[in-house]
Amino acid sequence: MKKQINSQVIWLTGLSGAGKSTIATYTAGEYYENGEIPCILDGDVIRKELCSDLKFSPEDRKENIRRIASIAKVLLDQGIIPIVAVISPYKEDRQMARDIIGAGRFYEVFVQCPISVCEDRDPKGLYAQVRNGTLKGFTGIDAPYEKPTDSDMIVDTTLIRAKDAGMLIHKYTTGAMDGILQSER
Amino acid sequence: MKKQINSQVIWLTGLSGAGKSTIATYTAGEYYENGEIPCILDGDVIRKELCSDLKFSPEDRKENIRRIASIAKVLLDQGIIPIVAVISPYKEDRQMARDIIGAGRFYEVFVQCPISVCEDRDPKGLYAQVRNGTLKGFTGIDAPYEKPTDSDMIVDTTLIRAKDAGMLIHKYTTGAMDGILQSER
Repeated sequence: MKKQINSQVIWLTGLSGAGKSTIATYTAGEYYENGEIPCILDGDVIRKELCSDLKFSPEDRKENIRRIASIAKVLLDQGIIPIVAVISPYKEDRQMARDIIGAGRFYEVFVQCPISVCEDRDPKGLYAQVRNGTLKGFTGIDAPYEKPTDSDMIVDTTLIRAKDAGMLIHKYTTGAMDGILQSER
Repeated sequence: MKKQINSQVIWLTGLSGAGKSTIATYTAGEYYENGEIPCILDGDVIRKELCSDLKFSPEDRKENIRRIASIAKVLLDQGIIPIVAVISPYKEDRQMARDIIGAGRFYEVFVQCPISVCEDRDPKGLYAQVRNGTLKGFTGIDAPYEKPTDSDMIVDTTLIRAKDAGMLIHKYTTGAMDGILQSER
């Protein structure tokens, strides 16, 4: 029997290129297949419209996180599962997001990946722009990424495929993992 | 047979107390019952968190609408039906919302009600605050409401109940109304 738990916002934090968006897509797929309603809030998409007025200063990054967390709350309150994929480099801002959404309704996943691997992948060509000097204030290079020390889950994308990460996140956040572990005992 | 049409954002505009939020709730209920996924974006709720940094100047009202339209777009792109209930007093701002969301994906409903009736209802006690001078810049009193002249639908809440309005909005936006009219011929 599926353990009944409260729905949560799934918050994926990590460097650019770590795999947040891909994992968000697979996680959403798992929720869909189980008859739940996910909604991806992807940092790149959000910055094009909702936060098109913001830049990448610490203050603007904070405001970006505040807005995303505020929407996530509205969605969660209506039974939709928000899956947030956003760098969210500052610990203080992630805590703010947790505070906005509410205790017990925020599930933080640290999408871990060495910056050298992110740079090799460079899916959006951003690291190349940083290296040739056309992009400044980039997280992990000349802007900080404060590693989470108390995430609800850590996913290392050099060790696990995005599809499997999505499956695991779904199982852990819905409490289904307990049953699996039990049946294997 | 249900006519297949593209999903749309349902945008309810009208004075405070006209009945937007109540109609939004009933419209959402109709969508739920038909296996679709609605999400209400209510101006009052949005102002508490996402737009808590904004006041009621024309510029801030515009920014409020811009943010709501931006989120509505993200939701609609993921198959969720956004039902927006927000005064949105300026024609220019409603047009901006339509432009952000995209042609053919924006269904404007003018929730019409004489201000004297809104004031009698005064569900939030705001008109009383305006009359005793503690609230300024209130739409319909000392701030303008530019009546829509080209709404997709007009609902007069002195003539129709909110529950019926919700049913009609659902039927028109899903194309189901054609079938009903045909069967009555």
